[in-house]
Amino acid sequence: MTDAWQSVVQDSPLASDLPSEPGSLRQRIEHRLGELLCFRGQTPKVLDEAMRYSMFSAGKRVRPVLAIVAAQHFGGHENDALDFACAIEMVHTASLILDDLPSMDNAAIRRRRKTLHVAFGEDVALLTAIALLSQAFGVIAACDALPSATKLRLIQLLSDTIGFSGLAAGQMRDLRDEAHLKTVDGVTTLNHQKTGVLFVAAVEGGAAIAGAGEDQLRCANAFARNVGLAFQLYDDLLDATSTLSALGKDAGKDSGKRNVISLIGVEETRSAVKRAIETALAPLAEGPLTDYTIKLFAKVTAT
Amino acid sequence: MTDAWQSVVQDSPLASDLPSEPGSLRQRIEHRLGELLCFRGQTPKVLDEAMRYSMFSAGKRVRPVLAIVAAQHFGGHENDALDFACAIEMVHTASLILDDLPSMDNAAIRRRRKTLHVAFGEDVALLTAIALLSQAFGVIAACDALPSATKLRLIQLLSDTIGFSGLAAGQMRDLRDEAHLKTVDGVTTLNHQKTGVLFVAAVEGGAAIAGAGEDQLRCANAFARNVGLAFQLYDDLLDATSTLSALGKDAGKDSGKRNVISLIGVEETRSAVKRAIETALAPLAEGPLTDYTIKLFAKVTAT
Repeated sequence: MTDAWQSVVQDSPLASDLPSEPGSLRQRIEHRLGELLCFRGQTPKVLDEAMRYSMFSAGKRVRPVLAIVAAQHFGGHENDALDFACAIEMVHTASLILDDLPSMDNAAIRRRRKTLHVAFGEDVALLTAIALLSQAFGVIAACDALPSATKLRLIQLLSDTIGFSGLAAGQMRDLRDEAHLKTVDGVTTLNHQKTGVLFVAAVEGGAAIAGAGEDQLRCANAFARNVGLAFQLYDDLLDATSTLSALGKDAGKDSGKRNVISLIGVEETRSAVKRAIETALAPLAEGPLTDYTIKLFAKVTAT
Repeated sequence: MTDAWQSVVQDSPLASDLPSEPGSLRQRIEHRLGELLCFRGQTPKVLDEAMRYSMFSAGKRVRPVLAIVAAQHFGGHENDALDFACAIEMVHTASLILDDLPSMDNAAIRRRRKTLHVAFGEDVALLTAIALLSQAFGVIAACDALPSATKLRLIQLLSDTIGFSGLAAGQMRDLRDEAHLKTVDGVTTLNHQKTGVLFVAAVEGGAAIAGAGEDQLRCANAFARNVGLAFQLYDDLLDATSTLSALGKDAGKDSGKRNVISLIGVEETRSAVKRAIETALAPLAEGPLTDYTIKLFAKVTAT
């Protein structure tokens, strides 16, 4: 690995720091998450504490920011997409909690802290994830800013994203299906199913909130698939090349597993990240979504 | 325990057999569940097999039947409530899978077979439960028979039923909160949170589908709380007094735990079941819901 790339990896906002842009959006998301997850004693204390530990732990909020920026890109308003964005982040956090469990990836560190099951117990972690997932659907159903038809579309999108052909399917294949891990295409498909689908839901949902037409939705989908791919490849790079202190989670955890890096190496993977970003941006007109993507991956594309 | 009660317990349709009434409803539910959970190769094979193992394992289908019968009771149509009823059963099955996990109740037998995690592994069980929960929301959102406002109301109801003040909260208290297990009132509250809430969702949802007014919804809610209580108390009785072969799940599993039986004994609990059924039926006009309840608990009330 070159020194330049080492510095990219270690300094990257994707590694551990919060993205500097768009800061105000991220703050609005934090604030709204706090409101949507305020139960005033109506939930057991330990469940509330576990939820706060996992939801408010310096997550990067990339997916909810993408949802809002996508809505803006296609002519919609930040306010209309805010609750949906929060729902996406609840699903993302739940999926991290579940993936970290002993019966899954058995991870001990996440975001520079103990994973939820290590800190609170496996039972608490599991119930927190279940409650966050169900809250996500309730938040969309209750959102005053959106027409009923849009809310139902978003709920179906989220259901597909999590369920039998979504994140659950991707995690199942990752754990059990060796055949998917032997080729670059197989790993790419798996990355999409494990990670990309939530990027697609965020961006497509944001576009739908803005009232995007079918052509625009297809464009949003293609963009999100490639940004999701770039993000996952970058995450694999960080995992392969960083130390725990730089990364904030268990580094090298995937080293026993096949991923793109074990198939094509660090430099080729870095090129693949760049290509995925270029492919993501190609079909999009300039606007909030292109601006955010360029900032998000600035340190990769600049070197 | 009297011989009469022993025979009630062993012969009861709640113990292991399917309720004989309303048979055609149960068959329609089975058939529709098969349609709603048909993925034609779009989900990993092991996830599909695990879903089938848990969803189509001679479950009693009491909750979905209650949902449909409640809709009928308040003037609605079976067809309108069918998909919601199936969603309720998906949530119920998911909650059983999760409750049985090693980090929860650590149960080995359910419905006369190995529990899902014993048969397929903990990872598969967990992902099956997650996928079923998310599918339940998607099924309601996609249901053609219902107006958008009703679907969104049902989705919020289901979200509340599962989440931070619903089943997840109830299971959390059951596992961690000893204070709830020291009095009859505490155990009753816990029973409601662990079991009753899904009965309430089924019946209130069915009533909402029928277009029931606020008075009728309150009535449906009170009925369902008490039927849920009766059902849970009966389940505790079966657990305390049956053998594995009669019960189809781990008998005596709760014997180390406080439940109503350890506080007031078998005969008092049996009286409490009868009282709960009477209280449930009191506010209801005669109709499909009263008929079904009387049939469901026939063997308890007859003795």
